Amino acid sequence: MKSFIECSACMIRQSLEILNKHSTSNEQKSDILKLVLKALSETTITSINPPQLTNKVHSILKQELHIQDFYSEEKKESNKEALRLESFLNQLIASADNPLLTAAKLAIAGNVIDHGALASFDLNETISTVLEDHFAIDHFDRFEELVSKPNRILYLGDNAGEIVFDKTFISLLLKQHQTVIYAVKSAPVLNDVLLEDAKETGLAAMIPVIESGSTTAGTEPSEMNAEFRNYYTNSDLIIAKGLGNFETLYGLNDRKNKFFLFKVKCPHLGKYLNLSMKDIVFLEETF
Amino acid sequence: MKSFIECSACMIRQSLEILNKHSTSNEQKSDILKLVLKALSETTITSINPPQLTNKVHSILKQELHIQDFYSEEKKESNKEALRLESFLNQLIASADNPLLTAAKLAIAGNVIDHGALASFDLNETISTVLEDHFAIDHFDRFEELVSKPNRILYLGDNAGEIVFDKTFISLLLKQHQTVIYAVKSAPVLNDVLLEDAKETGLAAMIPVIESGSTTAGTEPSEMNAEFRNYYTNSDLIIAKGLGNFETLYGLNDRKNKFFLFKVKCPHLGKYLNLSMKDIVFLEETF
Repeated sequence: MKSFIECSACMIRQSLEILNKHSTSNEQKSDILKLVLKALSETTITSINPPQLTNKVHSILKQELHIQDFYSEEKKESNKEALRLESFLNQLIASADNPLLTAAKLAIAGNVIDHGALASFDLNETISTVLEDHFAIDHFDRFEELVSKPNRILYLGDNAGEIVFDKTFISLLLKQHQTVIYAVKSAPVLNDVLLEDAKETGLAAMIPVIESGSTTAGTEPSEMNAEFRNYYTNSDLIIAKGLGNFETLYGLNDRKNKFFLFKVKCPHLGKYLNLSMKDIVFLEETF
Repeated sequence: MKSFIECSACMIRQSLEILNKHSTSNEQKSDILKLVLKALSETTITSINPPQLTNKVHSILKQELHIQDFYSEEKKESNKEALRLESFLNQLIASADNPLLTAAKLAIAGNVIDHGALASFDLNETISTVLEDHFAIDHFDRFEELVSKPNRILYLGDNAGEIVFDKTFISLLLKQHQTVIYAVKSAPVLNDVLLEDAKETGLAAMIPVIESGSTTAGTEPSEMNAEFRNYYTNSDLIIAKGLGNFETLYGLNDRKNKFFLFKVKCPHLGKYLNLSMKDIVFLEETF
């Protein structure tokens, strides 16, 4: 999916947030901001996808600030906060009428933890509302049917913190005789999950966790490493979490049984998909 | 007052709003946005004031879109909407314990009508809350003392719609034996008042209205024309409405009895002045 011209505003917002957090002086902020603006002015924003655009901007910020991971503290904090909720999440799932549906909805609720799209969020409020919500795009029945038999599932992670919500979903999938491999990013970008997040949250002790090769806030096909590509091609089912994975992998028509689970966190994407802000989506790519 | 680096985000937001409203194609939007980004990348934002920055960006938009006045319809609509409130405003003033204070507060409430700073606003809600509010910076006593005697007042307007609120304030000042001259901008910028707004709202039939010479969303000293400069220098008192006039005229220490009346509509300006969003200000420049 290509970027909207409105993505430029988000890029500036993200850059300012990072500069205000990590810059040493106003002069440095101003100089680096100029470089970001120049790069954006030389980019046909609508010709690349949003994670590619983010990467272009963040590469400059990383290089100029000599920092590779702008959200390392926030990620640790998100993981801790989510881990404190883990037993509560498992209880909600265990006591649900449809545990699989509840686990899936909670995994999507976790998608609200995002320093790329939103500056602030209320996790507890999101959990309670998401359980009441219906999917705005609802291909859950088809997913439920598929997982009634054992599958090898490739699960594409999105953000730190959210990974704990993925973990509770995955726990249930394992109980339902699914085999799950979890994929993380290969380099820090925004608050996207890395191998260390899978370790910190205990997910890596539960199932195999691999790096996708992608260094963008999505899963860039050209960056996929051989191991990941093998799983991507040969797994029975793919669960792709979050907007970044949707923006990079939806519409490729490259394989069947690919499900996108996310919360609409951008008004422009919402408009594009004819959805509202905060809608939750359980979408299968069909072709 | 110099711009903040955060002003860049506002410039992009304004540009996108204008492009989405007036552009003919996505390609045109993208091309013009590139020019805006390039100009911003070549500007040391923190070396010029916000109205100068706005002008730099809007000049490009005006030239590329071949449109001089992006908000002509909104301005007419704002004037109409405010005129519908005029008798209500006059009643509020007439029945107030301190009519001058109420008229001043209402004039500031009108400052919420701003397509530069805010995408949406609730005028009725603003009127009722502003009457309860205290000035966060309060030099009203000093103003009240000055206007206890007759003065020649130069009143610097800000936005269309808001001008009707200025008119009710000015009506009261006239009753209190003040002489008032009202100044408007010399070229369209955002929804700033022009001569036609003063005519449309009946203000021009009530008092002399002059153009300041300024083509920015403020009063740029270097642009002041001879007539305006004469009034600016020789009036007993100046009332400058809105953020643009504050951003261009505050701190010049060029004359006494200069009052700035505005509502804080930008979080960064608020932080800079140690004020909160939506605070109302009645500030005299002292030196």
